[in-house]
Amino acid sequence: MATIYHKVGIKASAEDIYQALTSDKGLSNWWTHETSGAGAVRSIIDFKFNDTIVQFRVKELIQNKKVVWKHFGETPPEWMNTEISFGFEVTDEQILVHMKHANWQEQTSFFAHCNLKWAVFMLSLKDYLETGKGRPFPNDVQIDHC
Amino acid sequence: MATIYHKVGIKASAEDIYQALTSDKGLSNWWTHETSGAGAVRSIIDFKFNDTIVQFRVKELIQNKKVVWKHFGETPPEWMNTEISFGFEVTDEQILVHMKHANWQEQTSFFAHCNLKWAVFMLSLKDYLETGKGRPFPNDVQIDHC
Repeated sequence: MATIYHKVGIKASAEDIYQALTSDKGLSNWWTHETSGAGAVRSIIDFKFNDTIVQFRVKELIQNKKVVWKHFGETPPEWMNTEISFGFEVTDEQILVHMKHANWQEQTSFFAHCNLKWAVFMLSLKDYLETGKGRPFPNDVQIDHC
Repeated sequence: MATIYHKVGIKASAEDIYQALTSDKGLSNWWTHETSGAGAVRSIIDFKFNDTIVQFRVKELIQNKKVVWKHFGETPPEWMNTEISFGFEVTDEQILVHMKHANWQEQTSFFAHCNLKWAVFMLSLKDYLETGKGRPFPNDVQIDHC
């Protein structure tokens, strides 16, 4: 099993970060423009990337502290049974968001692609919260061809 | 043991990418401005980040195909005994660079920090080669505080 693990510091309140991870509006501002279904535990969130819909079921929510999703469906195949979590670590200056995408079968070439893309999207989350402007798909063009 | 693994597509020749990974001039344009010592196998490269010098010994070079470094010295401590490799995968459109930072003892918080930073520097390498302008330290300010 392999895990993608990123840490990013964000100068925003825990409430605002939590909103960005648990609402359609928040998620659509940093991951993909077309996001729907975000809500309570057991909600299924649809993340649309052109013709591809990636789905996650909300598995755990600890208000202003932690968000866990479990992959739902079969797209993309390598994400089956994976889980994504965001944990908040509060420091004096900022909140460190620990993002993990766990339960990959192995560190494939696609894993490496997604690892880099997750870094880009974590920085998009940071920019959305700190400046009001993220770079959700399809505006993540900087690495469109990687 | 844990491995950071990124893949980035670069529209440049294998020769140019190899130069960017094996010469002081190339390395100083995408990782850190102050780079010295790059050369043949067994060379020790000094990468300076303010008062910190990070050193790697060149372990393997396959011209225009692969570069491997072995960490040298004790800074940063978690990098001791780690290895960094860059492998080239040629496709019709571009060259995919597979970057690995292997032999971490575990996936610590610092690992997560470095994982995100490596993504930023891989995109800096891409931009340097495609546009002539990378974002080597200290110009990697976008994530200065993470």
